[in-house]
Amino acid sequence: MPTYACDLPAVLEAAERIRGIVHRTPVMTCETLDRIAGQKLFFKCENLQKIGAFKYRGATNAVRKLTDAEAAKGVVTHSSGNHAQALALAARERGIPAYIVMPKTAPAVKKAAVEGYGGQITECEPNLADRERAANELVAKTGATLIPPFDHVDVISGQGTTALELLEDVPDLDAIVTPVGGGGLLAGCAVAARGRKPGIRVFGAEPLGADDAARSKAAGEQLLQTAPNTIADGLLTSTGQLTWPIIRDQVDRIFTVTDDEIRAAMRLVWERMKLIVEPSGAVGAAVALSSAFKALAGAEKVGIVFSGGNVNLDKLWW
Amino acid sequence: MPTYACDLPAVLEAAERIRGIVHRTPVMTCETLDRIAGQKLFFKCENLQKIGAFKYRGATNAVRKLTDAEAAKGVVTHSSGNHAQALALAARERGIPAYIVMPKTAPAVKKAAVEGYGGQITECEPNLADRERAANELVAKTGATLIPPFDHVDVISGQGTTALELLEDVPDLDAIVTPVGGGGLLAGCAVAARGRKPGIRVFGAEPLGADDAARSKAAGEQLLQTAPNTIADGLLTSTGQLTWPIIRDQVDRIFTVTDDEIRAAMRLVWERMKLIVEPSGAVGAAVALSSAFKALAGAEKVGIVFSGGNVNLDKLWW
Repeated sequence: MPTYACDLPAVLEAAERIRGIVHRTPVMTCETLDRIAGQKLFFKCENLQKIGAFKYRGATNAVRKLTDAEAAKGVVTHSSGNHAQALALAARERGIPAYIVMPKTAPAVKKAAVEGYGGQITECEPNLADRERAANELVAKTGATLIPPFDHVDVISGQGTTALELLEDVPDLDAIVTPVGGGGLLAGCAVAARGRKPGIRVFGAEPLGADDAARSKAAGEQLLQTAPNTIADGLLTSTGQLTWPIIRDQVDRIFTVTDDEIRAAMRLVWERMKLIVEPSGAVGAAVALSSAFKALAGAEKVGIVFSGGNVNLDKLWW
Repeated sequence: MPTYACDLPAVLEAAERIRGIVHRTPVMTCETLDRIAGQKLFFKCENLQKIGAFKYRGATNAVRKLTDAEAAKGVVTHSSGNHAQALALAARERGIPAYIVMPKTAPAVKKAAVEGYGGQITECEPNLADRERAANELVAKTGATLIPPFDHVDVISGQGTTALELLEDVPDLDAIVTPVGGGGLLAGCAVAARGRKPGIRVFGAEPLGADDAARSKAAGEQLLQTAPNTIADGLLTSTGQLTWPIIRDQVDRIFTVTDDEIRAAMRLVWERMKLIVEPSGAVGAAVALSSAFKALAGAEKVGIVFSGGNVNLDKLWW
């Protein structure tokens, strides 16, 4: 039997470690969506998490697990997304520096958000090689610890606490659906949910325009994502070296949805639930409303993670 | 001592009557808004109420209080706003007809919403006289009971349950702020909050472009609103014959805010709390963030009602 980067005890430890620091987010329901889905849906509102996304769980777990000596030197990551904000805030809450490498092309609003949480930005060229070079230079210079956005045991364990809480609030779930990009949330939730309730089914929700996890599951081997094309801009990356084995063995299936389905689900959530979810955050709801998912037997009570709510609202009618 | 249309026992009865039919909405907080306001704010999320607004409380109380013989003949109202949807759903939940008079100029989306909840629409000319004529004709023809949007004891009592719940969840509030249009919510909450906690202060929040309640309080007599001009389209009406005396005697003060302040508050709530509030629903938050309110002594823990979240999202980027 293979060993995995993350197991239930690691998630339970993470839950203890981050208690009182991260929000225990509410679980919400909506009769209209239930009617459309033909299932009873329970939405775990990580869009209401601090920094507006579940990423704060993993970042907090990783930052809090550092020894005082390690922590004093700070943390580093390269990200232009929710993980950058999450790590910046988690570091500030521990009173340590966060060095965030961002491509110079990143939108001003994202840089401002990271700086708003106290992160120190280092700009790099917009490619993976230069991002890694800049991050490694920062590590060498400061002695800070690199905390990657998903492929790290403490990050995966932290994200898994989402499923722990969901099952505490709704113990009789038949299935859990989470979005999958790098796979930190999905892998952590799979480990937590199956650890707590062996019979539960765990599904990934993936945009068709970045469907490496679905293709990997079909092929039985990890395939990488090239040229992703979807509005779900938090789900562009491939699964990781640590997340893929868990997804391969402990996730039942990956469902894919089109951008139109994501937009329609997002609109339903905004209109009927009055909750702002970002496109990546609505992919689980889009799956639940899809005909493929409805055709599934035995999934009557389904937990769905709204993974984030960080949408640029500049273009609305203020 | 004058007698008022509504008192605490009526609100307590309403709470019993509507329990399990209306949502007990959550109270949410936001560190960012607290920091900007310089107070601890507790938001009662009636935007998450059924039909997306507090109006479902009053409508349900009124509909449930009818005798079976009265109820069988149905209910009537004239409204193009949230009360129309609320009454339609409250009637459907009791299994009785709802006849809704709407101006023929009302947006198709609002008619569709009422019909979606099973309401039967009668169109009229877009003026008060024809609205009342049409409503009275329906009453004469069907024997249905007229349930006005705010100036009715059962409606006021039902809306007051909002403050009861808020104080149950956060007993040590110093003050409560609710939007004021016709005044059903404000009057009901004033009666409930002061009844429960005599020392609490109750404030109205009103758009400057429809500030009849503020001017009435200043003048010591009821002044009517003419030519209102504000984005807060749920707050255009004058206070009523039943709501005004309560507002006059049991509300401490009405604060006014500009449309720019309402828009800014609304944007903050969308961005930071990830909650969709409509302009009328954000007026309480706008007041809490205003300098006049910050200058108030002794209001450190403030309950604010997000009264609704029904925004037409057609023009967004779906």
